[in-house]
Amino acid sequence: MSRVYNFSAGPAVLPEEVLQAAADEMMDYKGTGMSVMEMSHRSKPFEEIITEAEADLRDLMEIPDNYKVLFLQGGASQQFAAIPMNLMKNGVADYIITGQWAKKAAQEAEKYGKVNRIASSEDKVFSYIPDCSDLPIDDNADYVYICENNTIYGTKYKELPNTKGKILVADVSSCFLSEPVDVTKYGVIYGGVQKNIGPAGTVIVIIREDLIRDDVFPGTPTMLKYKTQADAKSLYNTPPAYGIYICGKVFKWLKKMGGLEAMKERNEKKAKLLYDFLDQSQLFKGTVVKEDRSLMNVPFVTGNEELDAKFVKEAKAAGLENLKGHRTVGGMRASIYNAMPYEGVEALVAFMKKFEEENL
Amino acid sequence: MSRVYNFSAGPAVLPEEVLQAAADEMMDYKGTGMSVMEMSHRSKPFEEIITEAEADLRDLMEIPDNYKVLFLQGGASQQFAAIPMNLMKNGVADYIITGQWAKKAAQEAEKYGKVNRIASSEDKVFSYIPDCSDLPIDDNADYVYICENNTIYGTKYKELPNTKGKILVADVSSCFLSEPVDVTKYGVIYGGVQKNIGPAGTVIVIIREDLIRDDVFPGTPTMLKYKTQADAKSLYNTPPAYGIYICGKVFKWLKKMGGLEAMKERNEKKAKLLYDFLDQSQLFKGTVVKEDRSLMNVPFVTGNEELDAKFVKEAKAAGLENLKGHRTVGGMRASIYNAMPYEGVEALVAFMKKFEEENL
Repeated sequence: MSRVYNFSAGPAVLPEEVLQAAADEMMDYKGTGMSVMEMSHRSKPFEEIITEAEADLRDLMEIPDNYKVLFLQGGASQQFAAIPMNLMKNGVADYIITGQWAKKAAQEAEKYGKVNRIASSEDKVFSYIPDCSDLPIDDNADYVYICENNTIYGTKYKELPNTKGKILVADVSSCFLSEPVDVTKYGVIYGGVQKNIGPAGTVIVIIREDLIRDDVFPGTPTMLKYKTQADAKSLYNTPPAYGIYICGKVFKWLKKMGGLEAMKERNEKKAKLLYDFLDQSQLFKGTVVKEDRSLMNVPFVTGNEELDAKFVKEAKAAGLENLKGHRTVGGMRASIYNAMPYEGVEALVAFMKKFEEENL
Repeated sequence: MSRVYNFSAGPAVLPEEVLQAAADEMMDYKGTGMSVMEMSHRSKPFEEIITEAEADLRDLMEIPDNYKVLFLQGGASQQFAAIPMNLMKNGVADYIITGQWAKKAAQEAEKYGKVNRIASSEDKVFSYIPDCSDLPIDDNADYVYICENNTIYGTKYKELPNTKGKILVADVSSCFLSEPVDVTKYGVIYGGVQKNIGPAGTVIVIIREDLIRDDVFPGTPTMLKYKTQADAKSLYNTPPAYGIYICGKVFKWLKKMGGLEAMKERNEKKAKLLYDFLDQSQLFKGTVVKEDRSLMNVPFVTGNEELDAKFVKEAKAAGLENLKGHRTVGGMRASIYNAMPYEGVEALVAFMKKFEEENL
């Protein structure tokens, strides 16, 4: 077995010890004589898996009792519909556009009500987070929507928007569990797990209880109604059981690593190594304004497309995988999620140094 | 490692060699240096996985070129909404009610149009399939809906309904790939994979191309629109990648076993062993009329609740797991899907014999 350093934006690197434990338990989960994949979702062993996963997540994020934790399917893209379907009472919502995913979320919400795009950073290819201290929040807005970490563009809100008392809804897919979070500041925090937590196919929605309503948008599918899922504790139908099992193992790994404070330190240290190198490099350049830089996704360019392509190719040959940037930004992107070890970023920076010497 | 015989109705037993291969590849899939869980869904190795999975499924089921194969999320329950949202043009559909899942599908469809329940077997706890040779099909019906194998009640359509020219839509979750099927008789065949194919979290929809429309029910979420998913080849957003990978391995296993004709023979042989025993037993009795018996789900009772409970408990102690029947039928249920070996049914029948001797 030879593992690479995998800088994929998602699905992405997972902790080796989690994968190893999953492999070890594949044929026989803890003496049950079966794989977790083969287990009834109504069985006692699976009930323990999902209950512990939720309890560990609540511990890690210090989720208050008046918030529900839902393990759902369909990814963030399905939540783009579920959120307005469930939360629009007045039929109005304010969206802050900081990248492709916020944009898509806003487009989808327009099917269900009036959408105000109250700020955007599209003028500069989403390379910054707009000033959100005094935005024109609609008096009737049912919520204010953000994508908190922008995977493609490498930006992150360092301060949450001033929503002037309105509910904040945040897609945290690419910064989930990367640092401590004050859940009470949000009405809904949600994200696909396939970047920082587990395998694709599970989306976690953390929602304040009073926002779970019965009088949703007419025609809302039962499966997309938060009330259905909350009442059934995510077991209205068969959940993505194996994915939830892997997420649970990652939660335990995070607790063992010291929790979200420790992850934040570790992530800052990794990001600093890469950003410090970029800031002094003659060849490579970060694409994001410094104060809005993500700890998770680091896009950079040489300014020369051919050289970018050469870099990605040679990096791959050196065991540094998936460094190609998104087509809308070009160049490179290193996603350095929780499970990326410091050594992976060291190896990347050492490779970049060598490449710079050879190609400048 | 000690494996049990797992008679769970779903999630359910998977082929041991598939699980073993998944365990072996967990840390490093075919020299990529990463797990399939860590792999970008846009990467070449995953593209190969999903492309091969679809090709193998097409081979197995002989799916004509004018049908699309979609790998989706949300289970059958989400399809209960997606089907009427996508297929109702006239806003009318006919449902045949042969169990809880058909009933739920009909209820959900009522959100989107007029639902005619044109036949039902609810009068006898769904223990038979109604005569469907001459039903009052609505002239305006956009489709006729069935649940082809009824997991809870253990019935199966041996002949498809006469739809009088209307499109047939079938939920085949619990008989998926258990025997050959003539795809051309259906407009849509779909099912959750967690009974006969793979881990929970993937639903496969096989749909005739001309039924994929742009003018769906107003407010249909983008993710629930078949056109979105068909145009993007199931990669509109991140799919349940690991689940698709396991399904692909099961397809290869099925081909190696001889395909669906061979599975049918094998399944008939297993079911015959159990049904023949039931038919001569003084203690146990099948709950379904003989001509509608499922090859996959076999409910039976002793007629004495305490004895049923004793049976389930002692069977479990003997390594025969998950034999408790659904609460609406009571008694026991043995689900003997593709991956259940003949030896598992032999062990069950031997145990039943012994139990009968001891308790009659």
